[in-house]
Amino acid sequence: MPFKKTARKILLKRIPILTWGKEYTGQKLVNDLIAGFTVGLTVMPQALAYATLGGLEPQYGLYSAFIGCYIYAIFGSIKDITIGPTALMALMTYQQVMERNVDYAVLLCFLSGIVQIIMAILRLGVLIDFISIPVTVGFTSATSVVIATSQLKSLLGLKIKSSDFLDTMTKVISNIHQTRVNDLILGVSCIASLMLLRKLKDVRVHKKDSKPSKQQDTLKYILWLISTSRNAIVVVLCSLIAFYYERNGLGSPFLLTGNVKSGVPEFKLPPFETQLNNRTVLLGEMVSDLGSSIALVPIIAVLGNVAIAKAFASGSTIDATQELFTLSLCNLFGSFFSSMPITGSFSRSAVNHASGVQTPLGGIVTGTMVLLALGFLTPYFAYIPKASLAAVIVSAVVFMIEYEVVRPMWRSSKKDLACTFATFVACLIVGVEYGILLGVGVNLTFLLHSSARPAVYVEKQKTPHGVEYMAITPENSLYFPAIDFIKSSVGKAGMTSKHLPVVVDCRFILGADFTAAKGISALINEFMMRKQPLYFINTRKEVLHVFNGVMREDFKHFDSKEQVEQTIEDLTSDHGEQDCLLSHDCGDLHRRNLELKEISHNENLLV
Amino acid sequence: MPFKKTARKILLKRIPILTWGKEYTGQKLVNDLIAGFTVGLTVMPQALAYATLGGLEPQYGLYSAFIGCYIYAIFGSIKDITIGPTALMALMTYQQVMERNVDYAVLLCFLSGIVQIIMAILRLGVLIDFISIPVTVGFTSATSVVIATSQLKSLLGLKIKSSDFLDTMTKVISNIHQTRVNDLILGVSCIASLMLLRKLKDVRVHKKDSKPSKQQDTLKYILWLISTSRNAIVVVLCSLIAFYYERNGLGSPFLLTGNVKSGVPEFKLPPFETQLNNRTVLLGEMVSDLGSSIALVPIIAVLGNVAIAKAFASGSTIDATQELFTLSLCNLFGSFFSSMPITGSFSRSAVNHASGVQTPLGGIVTGTMVLLALGFLTPYFAYIPKASLAAVIVSAVVFMIEYEVVRPMWRSSKKDLACTFATFVACLIVGVEYGILLGVGVNLTFLLHSSARPAVYVEKQKTPHGVEYMAITPENSLYFPAIDFIKSSVGKAGMTSKHLPVVVDCRFILGADFTAAKGISALINEFMMRKQPLYFINTRKEVLHVFNGVMREDFKHFDSKEQVEQTIEDLTSDHGEQDCLLSHDCGDLHRRNLELKEISHNENLLV
Repeated sequence: MPFKKTARKILLKRIPILTWGKEYTGQKLVNDLIAGFTVGLTVMPQALAYATLGGLEPQYGLYSAFIGCYIYAIFGSIKDITIGPTALMALMTYQQVMERNVDYAVLLCFLSGIVQIIMAILRLGVLIDFISIPVTVGFTSATSVVIATSQLKSLLGLKIKSSDFLDTMTKVISNIHQTRVNDLILGVSCIASLMLLRKLKDVRVHKKDSKPSKQQDTLKYILWLISTSRNAIVVVLCSLIAFYYERNGLGSPFLLTGNVKSGVPEFKLPPFETQLNNRTVLLGEMVSDLGSSIALVPIIAVLGNVAIAKAFASGSTIDATQELFTLSLCNLFGSFFSSMPITGSFSRSAVNHASGVQTPLGGIVTGTMVLLALGFLTPYFAYIPKASLAAVIVSAVVFMIEYEVVRPMWRSSKKDLACTFATFVACLIVGVEYGILLGVGVNLTFLLHSSARPAVYVEKQKTPHGVEYMAITPENSLYFPAIDFIKSSVGKAGMTSKHLPVVVDCRFILGADFTAAKGISALINEFMMRKQPLYFINTRKEVLHVFNGVMREDFKHFDSKEQVEQTIEDLTSDHGEQDCLLSHDCGDLHRRNLELKEISHNENLLV
Repeated sequence: MPFKKTARKILLKRIPILTWGKEYTGQKLVNDLIAGFTVGLTVMPQALAYATLGGLEPQYGLYSAFIGCYIYAIFGSIKDITIGPTALMALMTYQQVMERNVDYAVLLCFLSGIVQIIMAILRLGVLIDFISIPVTVGFTSATSVVIATSQLKSLLGLKIKSSDFLDTMTKVISNIHQTRVNDLILGVSCIASLMLLRKLKDVRVHKKDSKPSKQQDTLKYILWLISTSRNAIVVVLCSLIAFYYERNGLGSPFLLTGNVKSGVPEFKLPPFETQLNNRTVLLGEMVSDLGSSIALVPIIAVLGNVAIAKAFASGSTIDATQELFTLSLCNLFGSFFSSMPITGSFSRSAVNHASGVQTPLGGIVTGTMVLLALGFLTPYFAYIPKASLAAVIVSAVVFMIEYEVVRPMWRSSKKDLACTFATFVACLIVGVEYGILLGVGVNLTFLLHSSARPAVYVEKQKTPHGVEYMAITPENSLYFPAIDFIKSSVGKAGMTSKHLPVVVDCRFILGADFTAAKGISALINEFMMRKQPLYFINTRKEVLHVFNGVMREDFKHFDSKEQVEQTIEDLTSDHGEQDCLLSHDCGDLHRRNLELKEISHNENLLV
């Protein structure tokens, strides 16, 4: 039964666990357990930190960290990816939560899922193609700067509230005298330790050309494990210090995270209304408050996820629609557990990959660890110093600033570099959401400008018998932004030598539209009024079709250069002299003659 | 002195009256006087009507009608164009004035002038190229419908206030029982008379093939004059009827225009603040109230003006910057005389042309007539029935509905027709301003989509000695929206026959950017990992430059098909068998071999 077969095929494609699950082995399970556990050690401090970054209570980071892992284990197609809270999503959430409440974050998560599923159904993945590398680089670099800046207040122990980059900088500088030295020392030492621990995995344990021994291999693995769990290690150590002080009644020398609500989040509908400033805000108003983030957050989530997928798919094609679909499920289900918007995390996916994960099943281990932490560890989370979490964030995002791309971009395309710069600056000044929109706008403007002002080559050529004519080659398709320019270029070329026939070579014209057809029609009329011959060669069938809708007889088209040159020669020899075209008296005669020629050439016309 | 010469040249270019003024003759003066007078007869009823359409008191239409004529006489480059109030500008003004006051209209006029002069300086005339014919057609047709609808209330004598199309329709229908029969009869008869009078100039006064006698010529001219002044004739007749009733103490049977303020408008600064709802609104708030119209009104004004200029320049190139500059002066100066935004009027320019105008001087006659009317005729304007002015508007705009373009567009390009339809519907539903933005958006999406998903031709070909290879030709330039698609197309083509070399023909790749270079670099890595050869031919210098910024050695490029086929043959013969490429063992050997080949081919590389 073909229906059953198709259904089965779709099912296998959309639920990858059905495929890889059949080939699952004990060895794979061991690998997945180790990888899942290691990722779990990474996600916990990150989740707490990103919740703070997003302007939410710490437990919301954990709420956001488990559901994505479970869903992706079933529907995900790339084994390395782990879905959960990220610095970028947290920052974009913060823009919405600031001066409002957590309900906006959860609703945004739900709506992101809805938008993503609509994108998956309408195959709108193509939208991502319109975000170029220059824009992405400018955007992520600016985001890193914004995030790093936002952590300054925690690192300095300042108690200020701020919104965007400029605001934060201003407030930090004007409050710099209130810096708490303890927090500053702790934060700086944490960052230094994290940077050192990060390098630990690159330490060479054996000579360059010899084969490592077993002990050396083990040592290497331990170093790697320490390096990978550095966030957890640093945070735990700092918490122990704080715990020691508090228990001995000395009071904490640092600002602490404070109470983290214990327990697994309730499964409930996302908030379709909320209480804000002592009044009920209904769904419609909440949606209009969220504004453009409803489109931007899911698109940027998809962008990030696709970028990670590409990085780990190692050359093989990724199923963008499946990734989109899975991501939408993660956000939809997540919103029922009070999650903020989530997407693939590059840092944790890298840890997962390096830990030797074999299947997406590793995610289930990670997710379960987060749930267990919610059940049993939250009382201890209260002792985590804020400065240590800030250090975790800063150490993560500082590597997202992509200064190394500037050199090749300068060499390759200065326009693109301008675009990166514009995006970067715009993100810092008007905020990351509008910054990326502005960057895409600038980028598209460059693109459209080149399609509006294409190169047009004009050259005087001679037929085999030495009759001169003007050859014009426009280097672009004929769509509306370019037609006026091409039309006036051809017109001008015709005016410079009114006695020469003009041949337009359409080899680079791959497509055309109605506006272009109207323009060409006007151009032909112009030439007719001057009684100057105008021919077209190498016109494609698609383009001819568009032109024929607007004009039929007047578009004189030949298949090859030889044919048109023959026609030009015939034209001249009939009149003895080419300059006769200038005279009005023989113009009509000439024109009739021309038409006869056309008719005799009719077998060559595609019309 | 070259500076003096340049200055002189610029002066002559920017002030055309200096050029045509020198060749001015008495005969030209007579022609200009007649044309200016005829246009004057047309502009007065139109000005009063468009002021009402714009939600302003009638005198503001006259205020807007004279300054453009004077300025254009000095700076204008096309003799036929007359600048003043138009239906479209009035409609766009109405959106801003409605529920506010006339200060907004005057400020909008001033800001339009500013935006236009900025556009002229930055050479932003290119923006107009992005409004295609389909969008223009959809927009003007919808505008005509909206304007015609807005006149329904005057035609039916209803006393309602309404904003947009849907609102007007709803209110007219629900108030239809309050129709004033007198106004309805007058309105309908006016429309009928105007339509008949419009046809009057086409009446044939002599036999088809005979030459007309002098009397016949005179008769023809009189008919034409009556036809051209039809608006004035109808309005004057209707006013006489109303005047008769009023003077005889019978009360007017129609709703009348009422008091029109007498006198030339004061020369004063445009309003940079205003009183609204008993409070002072400052410039900043006024600007933010005007919102996107500040950009849209001037752009659409320029669009209209350029379209008219093109129509009357009869083939010769128009100086778009000069037109932009003149239009900005008209609006800037206009705003000092309490004008609403103005632009070239198609109907009056056509009358001007048909009246045999010789130079822009005709405008001075028209402008002076309007000033005289303001001085002496305003008491009589009060008797003009509203329904007759509505009839003038309806009879003008009904011919702007371009239904005849649908057929050729359907034949030529269905996408363009969809675009027209989308613009039309959007203009009716969300208003003309956002409608046109939406139309441009849809249009650009179509354009960008075709550049994001180009055709890629894949073909198995053979070298002269029968060695097979895959030839791939992407039909588009390599910019960011397309690169992922092209990359995966080439990748897929390579995967389908992993043992064949792949040759990418770059003949249609006219340009590239950084994102594309990165993509191609990744593609090359992919092929290297599979040890499958990947060559490029016909790459342009510009494209090579962009690629070389990102990668140097790996991009294997040949100048011609022959060279690459030679390389492929050498490759195979060295190994005896082509399938060796599949085997991993000989892959490295093969690769080294390949590199040697490359080096020996180095003189052919453009790198």
